[in-house]
Amino acid sequence: MAPVTGLGEEMHALVERLYPLCRSITGDGVRATLDIVGEYVPLQVHEVPTGTQVLDWTVPQEWNIRDAYVADAAGNRVVDFAASSLHVLGYSVPVAATMPLSELRGHLHTLPDHPAWVPYRTSYYTPDWGFCLSQETLDGLPDGDYEVRIDSTLADGHLTYAEHVVPGQVADEVIVSCHVCHPALANDNMAGVAVATYLARELAERSPYYTYRFIYAPGTIGAVTWLARNAERIERVKHGLVLACAGDRGRLTYKQSRRGDAEIDRVLRHVLRTSERPHDVVEFTPYGYDERQYCSPGFDLGVGSLSRTPYAAYPEYHTSADNPDFVSPEALADTLAVCREAFAVLDRNRRYVNLSPYGEPQLGRRGLYESLGGRSDAKQAQMAMLWVLSLSDGEHGLLDVAERSGLPFDAVAAAADALCGAGLIKA
Amino acid sequence: MAPVTGLGEEMHALVERLYPLCRSITGDGVRATLDIVGEYVPLQVHEVPTGTQVLDWTVPQEWNIRDAYVADAAGNRVVDFAASSLHVLGYSVPVAATMPLSELRGHLHTLPDHPAWVPYRTSYYTPDWGFCLSQETLDGLPDGDYEVRIDSTLADGHLTYAEHVVPGQVADEVIVSCHVCHPALANDNMAGVAVATYLARELAERSPYYTYRFIYAPGTIGAVTWLARNAERIERVKHGLVLACAGDRGRLTYKQSRRGDAEIDRVLRHVLRTSERPHDVVEFTPYGYDERQYCSPGFDLGVGSLSRTPYAAYPEYHTSADNPDFVSPEALADTLAVCREAFAVLDRNRRYVNLSPYGEPQLGRRGLYESLGGRSDAKQAQMAMLWVLSLSDGEHGLLDVAERSGLPFDAVAAAADALCGAGLIKA
Amino acid sequence: MAPVTGLGEEMHALVERLYPLCRSITGDGVRATLDIVGEYVPLQVHEVPTGTQVLDWTVPQEWNIRDAYVADAAGNRVVDFAASSLHVLGYSVPVAATMPLSELRGHLHTLPDHPAWVPYRTSYYTPDWGFCLSQETLDGLPDGDYEVRIDSTLADGHLTYAEHVVPGQVADEVIVSCHVCHPALANDNMAGVAVATYLARELAERSPYYTYRFIYAPGTIGAVTWLARNAERIERVKHGLVLACAGDRGRLTYKQSRRGDAEIDRVLRHVLRTSERPHDVVEFTPYGYDERQYCSPGFDLGVGSLSRTPYAAYPEYHTSADNPDFVSPEALADTLAVCREAFAVLDRNRRYVNLSPYGEPQLGRRGLYESLGGRSDAKQAQMAMLWVLSLSDGEHGLLDVAERSGLPFDAVAAAADALCGAGLIKA
Repeated sequence: MAPVTGLGEEMHALVERLYPLCRSITGDGVRATLDIVGEYVPLQVHEVPTGTQVLDWTVPQEWNIRDAYVADAAGNRVVDFAASSLHVLGYSVPVAATMPLSELRGHLHTLPDHPAWVPYRTSYYTPDWGFCLSQETLDGLPDGDYEVRIDSTLADGHLTYAEHVVPGQVADEVIVSCHVCHPALANDNMAGVAVATYLARELAERSPYYTYRFIYAPGTIGAVTWLARNAERIERVKHGLVLACAGDRGRLTYKQSRRGDAEIDRVLRHVLRTSERPHDVVEFTPYGYDERQYCSPGFDLGVGSLSRTPYAAYPEYHTSADNPDFVSPEALADTLAVCREAFAVLDRNRRYVNLSPYGEPQLGRRGLYESLGGRSDAKQAQMAMLWVLSLSDGEHGLLDVAERSGLPFDAVAAAADALCGAGLIKA
Repeated sequence: MAPVTGLGEEMHALVERLYPLCRSITGDGVRATLDIVGEYVPLQVHEVPTGTQVLDWTVPQEWNIRDAYVADAAGNRVVDFAASSLHVLGYSVPVAATMPLSELRGHLHTLPDHPAWVPYRTSYYTPDWGFCLSQETLDGLPDGDYEVRIDSTLADGHLTYAEHVVPGQVADEVIVSCHVCHPALANDNMAGVAVATYLARELAERSPYYTYRFIYAPGTIGAVTWLARNAERIERVKHGLVLACAGDRGRLTYKQSRRGDAEIDRVLRHVLRTSERPHDVVEFTPYGYDERQYCSPGFDLGVGSLSRTPYAAYPEYHTSADNPDFVSPEALADTLAVCREAFAVLDRNRRYVNLSPYGEPQLGRRGLYESLGGRSDAKQAQMAMLWVLSLSDGEHGLLDVAERSGLPFDAVAAAADALCGAGLIKA
Repeated sequence: MAPVTGLGEEMHALVERLYPLCRSITGDGVRATLDIVGEYVPLQVHEVPTGTQVLDWTVPQEWNIRDAYVADAAGNRVVDFAASSLHVLGYSVPVAATMPLSELRGHLHTLPDHPAWVPYRTSYYTPDWGFCLSQETLDGLPDGDYEVRIDSTLADGHLTYAEHVVPGQVADEVIVSCHVCHPALANDNMAGVAVATYLARELAERSPYYTYRFIYAPGTIGAVTWLARNAERIERVKHGLVLACAGDRGRLTYKQSRRGDAEIDRVLRHVLRTSERPHDVVEFTPYGYDERQYCSPGFDLGVGSLSRTPYAAYPEYHTSADNPDFVSPEALADTLAVCREAFAVLDRNRRYVNLSPYGEPQLGRRGLYESLGGRSDAKQAQMAMLWVLSLSDGEHGLLDVAERSGLPFDAVAAAADALCGAGLIKA
């Protein structure tokens, strides 16, 4: 793992700041989240009205909540939304009633195997209400009547998502997508939001080859909405990465695109392997995060997903234990570093054509040997030039050259630059 | 291995009943065999005249035999066809002579390495006569004159084979072929005949997708004859399986078609692997049973071969030790079960096209979640639907989905049925 | 390794004879080398004028040298070209001067890690002069003035290379190329020259299928020159082998062509594997010997490289320790044997078409069983015929048959001959 840097701490601070907001697939929690992110990178925020048809889906009513609690006979709030937005079942309809515990139990969600943790539950498309609490709290509740109140609104409104674009030298795009719909969960997915945001800031500083589009949207319905509203843009989306669970202390996991051999897959495999980070590369599966939508067979985009411990594979997943302590600055910095390295490779992975393909061109005559620095560097640079010349047949890109030669991608890219400068190859 | 069932015992009884008949590549022994099989499934019996040109071959004269023996000076039959049809060299020309043992030896076949066993020998295309006996019997024969008599007929007649067809929903065919030319040998191949026959009975009860054609024919010349007479049908033969040595106690062996990646190969590999039966999958070789003919390069059919211990790989092969005791009811039932499972997969291995391929369709709205039973079943059914949707691009069949997802084929097929019913995919 | 044969000793004698000559990329040393080789096989010698443009290169001035030495104050030659041609930096410009050791040091090359060895150094394309000597010699030189003299000529002249052609049944060619530019080095590459020469003599005796062209040329510039002058021939070059470092005691190394799956690659892999010689097969890299030129992307010929210890991978490489003692007759004979076996396979690796592809043809009727010798040979011959019939679909060659069947290539080729004779297959 990369050493802690100031960036790790900064990203962690952003996670802590975003963490408490009550997000859902619609509503003011998402807007507040995007407001904060907008302080770091300029965002274009989109509001899509309830009822809009998006692919096979319809934008649902907007949900907002002001207060919610369960109070005992003495008026003490034994479960309180103000303490954590997890305590309310997401998309709960309003309720105001008094009922015995026996009746209330049907609306209470706990985690008996983790009695101190509060689960995260939603009911987006089936009207329902409920509370989430720890098993310990539930066990401490005496029988009797309880006041139940959820001051929420389900009404026509909008679905909110945002984009940030880093313009590139070409119109072809790389999308980086992260979901912003989970309430008080840190790793899932304020960690992904933080890494995406800092990545966007870095990219803007280096005039990238591709145009990079960052998408902050609620899970599933948000990605579906973006796809529905960007039909004409899809053709330009050449590569993409979904960022999720980007900050826990586990090893990195790259989930390949449905294609399995998309360029983004090859790039991430290369970077993870050559960086010698502990990591896993896993096959595409049609569940997980929004790669499900980007990789649906009609689109079949070259979009992979980078996380640390993958989707649903850690006990803290979708519980109150996924809090800012579960996320580490080192892990955030390490995930950011992998993204940085991967996009640096992706951005330079061109195919060249050898303009002097019959026999080796005489490198010495062109000063391509003399221009080299130290001895071992010189040897590597010479090998890299020979490899680039050998494989620049229009079939192989620089990543192919790096993989086949075993040379560092940077050395290969530098050789390509030198050969390009000497007029021996062209992109 | 599957538990003993009544079917295993029934098939074993059929093997015992067929075992003693004196079969050859032509003659009344084949007819008597087919008469008995015809009591189990209706057969269409074909008689092809001697001299008929079949591909590169010619139907030979028909061979029949009534009696044969070697008798000592006292008139005792020391080798007697009545005791076992193995005792006569197959296709022996008639002989009636008396000769000293020294001269007779040139016509006697034994197995010195297995002194108690009688070998099985034939001379179909080179006129000859001979007796097969145990080495022990031979060693006990005193010198002196012996009466030798073979009361056989080699004359113009017919080659006999039979077919049984289970009609399917489509005219495309699956052939199941077994050889019926070996005399008193049980595993090779009355076991194959018994499994084929019970398989045919089962298939008739379930209105299969494909039309299944069972071919009972003498080895090599019978398959060649069938191919020669069905030139116009070959195009409709999409898959096939040769059944041989189907009842010994060894592990299952699937020999792949010459293509190696035919659908039948993929199906058998899948079923054997996922059933966790001990088994071997071996490459095609151009020797063995009638897959040699079906897979000859001009036809190159997708026909594999299922046996237990493979062709010629057990000491009892082509000896009197391949008797009904060598075949077990459990093994017969197990081979039948694999065929049943394999054809159930083959029959449902369709390719579908996702009619809602842009993003995931909303399954909940269509009641595709609610329709599910228990919790873990429900999870598996949901995963299966997502996988079928993801891979239904016209390129992948349900077997591909099962292999890639790791889900049971049955779950995948059920998901396809549900999605088809909801109008989300079509075949 | 193959047993020592007279051929091994003969080749070693040729290495010893060629060893002392002062070769370079041009000059009389190359001509003297080719004169000697010409005593073994007739050579067509080509002289290409200085200044000729050859692909991206230009034929340089011709270099010749008559004498060179460093003499101490007493007139003793402490470094003397007459003792070894390695002592002079290749392509040294003339010099005649007296200078203190301190100044001379800048022109002296040693191997501090191997103090008794003299290195081999050149400066073909940058005018320079220098001497190579052992570190021990250098350490023994007292300070003081030294007379330095190099009596060399760098002048317009010619680059010399030679060809020997063994005519085949077809015009398609196999090239065998070896470099002839290294001075007093034995393994690199008089060993390659010796093996090539004896291979040429053998091939001439067996009327090969392909036309075999042996190329004796200086490294890099010589191969580049040959390619430049044979543009119209390249299309006919179907296969090729670069021979280098062919006589040390290390295991064999086959370096594959850039294509990696060229027929020559498959042949060498097959021969090395089935011969059970210890060996390595390595991927193509764009450095090494003249496979660099033949496999440059514009030509991309199916040319591999056979050596024992590979290019630059032994300490004696490019030093005075690469002398005739470093080369063994056994190793030379073994390398020759592999070439012989490989070209025997290559020459017979035809694709046939089964003319009776529907079912198996009846081999017995055509006497193809009877014609067989002993029992196990007969079985192998029968299997080989069945395999050739099965795979002769126009897609597979005899090497494919040998690899897939596991049968010896010779048995497969003999089966193809028999089947061809019987009219069952045709090339």
